[in-house]
Order: sequence, then structure tokens, then C-alpha cells
Amino acid sequence: MFTGLSAFPLTPVTPSGIDEKGFVNILARLTEAGVDSLGVLGSTGSYAYLTREQKKRVTALAAQHAGGIPLMVCIGAYGTEQVLQLADDAQTAGADALLLPVLCYQSLTDDEVYALYETVTRHSSVPLCVYNNPRTTRFEFSDALLVRVAALPGVQSVKIPGVQAEPVRMQSLRKILPAEVAIGVSGDEFAGQGLNAGCEVWYSVCGGLFPNSARQIVDAARAGDSGCVSEQVARLEPLWQLFRRHGSIRVMAAAAGILGLSDIDCLPRPLQPLPAEACRDIAAVMTQLELR
Amino acid sequence: MFTGLSAFPLTPVTPSGIDEKGFVNILARLTEAGVDSLGVLGSTGSYAYLTREQKKRVTALAAQHAGGIPLMVCIGAYGTEQVLQLADDAQTAGADALLLPVLCYQSLTDDEVYALYETVTRHSSVPLCVYNNPRTTRFEFSDALLVRVAALPGVQSVKIPGVQAEPVRMQSLRKILPAEVAIGVSGDEFAGQGLNAGCEVWYSVCGGLFPNSARQIVDAARAGDSGCVSEQVARLEPLWQLFRRHGSIRVMAAAAGILGLSDIDCLPRPLQPLPAEACRDIAAVMTQLELR
Repeated sequence: MFTGLSAFPLTPVTPSGIDEKGFVNILARLTEAGVDSLGVLGSTGSYAYLTREQKKRVTALAAQHAGGIPLMVCIGAYGTEQVLQLADDAQTAGADALLLPVLCYQSLTDDEVYALYETVTRHSSVPLCVYNNPRTTRFEFSDALLVRVAALPGVQSVKIPGVQAEPVRMQSLRKILPAEVAIGVSGDEFAGQGLNAGCEVWYSVCGGLFPNSARQIVDAARAGDSGCVSEQVARLEPLWQLFRRHGSIRVMAAAAGILGLSDIDCLPRPLQPLPAEACRDIAAVMTQLELR
Repeated sequence: MFTGLSAFPLTPVTPSGIDEKGFVNILARLTEAGVDSLGVLGSTGSYAYLTREQKKRVTALAAQHAGGIPLMVCIGAYGTEQVLQLADDAQTAGADALLLPVLCYQSLTDDEVYALYETVTRHSSVPLCVYNNPRTTRFEFSDALLVRVAALPGVQSVKIPGVQAEPVRMQSLRKILPAEVAIGVSGDEFAGQGLNAGCEVWYSVCGGLFPNSARQIVDAARAGDSGCVSEQVARLEPLWQLFRRHGSIRVMAAAAGILGLSDIDCLPRPLQPLPAEACRDIAAVMTQLELR
């Protein structure tokens, strides 16, 4: 399941709770486009903001509407006990894989982080992807730690931040990680760089709403056409600009509203929707780039 | 309740879960010393790491053993819905006040943070203390935002980081905040500075385990003896050094073990106990400073 395009959909939330119809609308776009996997309740899927019950429901909906596409679920939380609860919930609701970031409240030592992954992999019966996202989670993996964690039974992928997705770094990562651990790029604007440098997966935010545009890039990478990959990613630069200005989750939420898949205001509180002017910019970029 | 010494106890956690006996042991020290309030499930109380059920239980135990001392409970979480659940749980279990930090996953605007506090105060029926702790929570209050939030009905205190507890800053804070909002200092090494600069409360980590030592400092402040306050805080410098080196929560957990109140290993995972050498240093400082 850790290959090609892994689409990370939004979880639309309105004042009355999870917008289940909206979420199913979004999932339908992904299954129709035939993405390689679904990454629900990722950062873009608002795992951090939802209650345990809401996360259970979102996972169950995703499993029900995945149409046979492998389903990965993020189980991040500060405490190991919380993570284990979420791991159980996700597997019970139908997750095929787990995605685990390191959330830091107090700062953590490498041994503490290793023990967290060791505990979770021992406890779970599905594969796990290590989520390395220092910007959001405040934890930076050293290479030594990443090697230890990637060697744990059950660890089958590492999701790396886009800034690490350049050729020299990728070569060194590929050398130190087990061959059977898939390296996946995140940070959409770095997708081309990552895929061209040998990432096996793109953990994609824009692919969670615009799977056809993302699919073209992954297909070009599969065909070994690195020029086309770079071109396609460069073509989407106005979208990456919006991501940098507003944050990708806020842009994707507005876009889901613009497409009529959910409300314009579909972010879980405390997040609030972008102002009307920003939404107009987003709509204009969607038209310009034929994101539909 | 927002006055004097507010003691923030550890929540001891062993492999079998909350160490209820250990927690009650610690509470007994605080009620015997007659602290002015209890701040359970603060950062030192490991709120970030515990499950919802564990937090309910800890609050209920604290309410049962508070001996009439007002009880404040931290309800921090990333999502507003999660915070509201915790606010309900805390009040149902007997909290007299709520403590609310701003946890940031995606970065938040001032308006989003204001709306969070507005929602929670409207939803709750007990007073609220604003927890401003940029180092742990990644959110920095501007003065403009603090003024807006402090004006909300129900907000009765602001817990400020120690580095802000110096006279010029305190004067300006006192000027911009409503007179009925108590300013409380945190970051124990800054307690003297804060109390001497006019803080009405000390939200105290060491007071959560060594209430008598902390009590002396607050008593001196109440008597207007700023020299004695500074002297007492300076006397504890070896303890502050340990806090800086290992993190105060890790030092307090080791100290609770050394005192026989819980196990030496009483931190919730992923946090792990300090190595034996550090525990020996802590024991030596406790002897030297007569912390018992």
C-alpha cells in the first residue's frame, strides 16, 4: 500500500459536527480517480482537533467508502496510552495501516521516541508509517533514531518533510533505511523533487481533493519522465503560493466549499474559515489551474 | 481562589495506570500544608499525556481529597470540541475552576484564540484561568489579545511565564488587565521576581510536592518582605538548576519516588524516568535544601 499517490483528504466539520455527506463526497472523488491509498485523519484530515468518537466515526466512514483502496489512519497524540487507544480504534474501524507522528509536549529523548514506536508496533497488527513532520509536531528525527525506528517490525514507510526530498539527502536516506521501507514525500510543493529523487510515495494534500492533477504527476514519475514531473509541479505553483500564505489545510477547506462538496466553513474549531477575499483568490487559482 | 500559593501536583503514573495511592499521598501533603488552591492536571500533572477517562478519575480523586481547598483543573487540547468535553468532565467531577492553555497544531490567529476562550467561558459555569505558556504550547499572546480574553466573563486569572515577571512588564500588564483578574507567576525560579513585582498568585511546580518551602516564600510576599522572598527563592537555586537541566516534571517525578510517595518511575509514557545518576543528584539536592 505504500506506493504511488497516497491521498490525504480533509475531514469537513460544520457547527453540527463531522459533515459526513461532505466527507463521503470527497472520498468518492478519490476512489473514482483510483488513488493508491487513502490517508485519513492526517494533519489535513484534522486528527489533532477531533474527539476520539469523531475519529472512530471518520475511520468507519472511510473504510466503508474506500472501495477496496488501502486505508491509512493517523493515530497521533501526546501520550502513549492515548496513541494505543487510537490504534485500537483505527484497527477496529477498518484501518489497513497506521500513521504515527511524534507529538511533543515536554521535549522527548530519542530513547523515549523509540520506545513509543516499539510499543505501538508491538501492540498493532497492521503496518505503520513513521510521520516525520518537525514543523507541525516539534520533533526532529536524527538519522540514528530514524534507522532504529525503521528497523522495527511493522514499520513499512517513512513520511519525510519536503525540505529533505532533494537528491543528496534522499540517496543517504535510501542507504541507511531498510530497502523494504518506502520513503514518501510530503509538502506538496516538494513532490516533484521527491519523486524525481526516488521517493516511492507522495503523501499528498492536494491529491486529497484534486486526485486527477496529483495522479498525472505520479504517473509521470512512474514513467520515469522527470521533466514532466517537474513541469506539472511547477504548473501548480499558484496553488503552492496559496498553501504558503494561508496554510494548506485552510486552502483545501475553502476549495472543498468552492466545489460544493462541503460548506465554505468546514474547518474544526478553533480553526476558522479564510476571509471572503482569500476564498476568491483560491477560486481564481482553481479556475486558472483547472483544478476541479 | 486565585491568590497565594497554587500547588501543581504531579499525577504519578505507573505501568498499571494512574497511581491513585501515590496521587492521594501527594494531595495529603498539600492539604496538610494548607495551600491556597490545587492546580491538578497542569503541565506537571501530565494532562497532555492522559486519556479522557484518566483525567476524569484524577479530577474526581482530587475533588474527594481536596479537603475544602479550591480545585483548578487544566482542560487543554488542540480542538475546541475536545476542550469542551474536558470542561464538562472537569466540572462534573468537581472542579472549582478551569485552566486553559492554547495548544497549537496549525498556527492560530488571535481571532481564533479569542473565539476559543469565548466559547469555553460561555459554556462553563466556573471561573477560568488563562494559561500563557509559549514555551510548551507554541502560542504567544499579544497584549491586545490578552486584554480581549481577560475581559471575558468568567476569566479571573492569567498565568504568565516567569520571564515576563519583572517589574516593568508587570506594571504594564497590571495596567492593561482588569483589576479583578489575578496575575499569577509560573516558572518557579521566577517566583520571587513575580511575587515581588505584584503577582497575586504563584502557580507553583515545587509547591506541588514541597508546599512548606513554597509556603514560606508566599508568606514572606504577603508580609511585604521582598528581601526574604528573594533570599528564599535564591536558596532553592540548586533545585532550579535541576529543573533547567532535566525539566521540572522529570525532577518532581524522581523526587516523589525518592520520598516514597510513588515509584521512581512514575511518569506517563512516552516520558521515561531519569537515569539513576540524575536521581542521586536530585536526592542530594533535596537533602541539602531540606526538601522533605
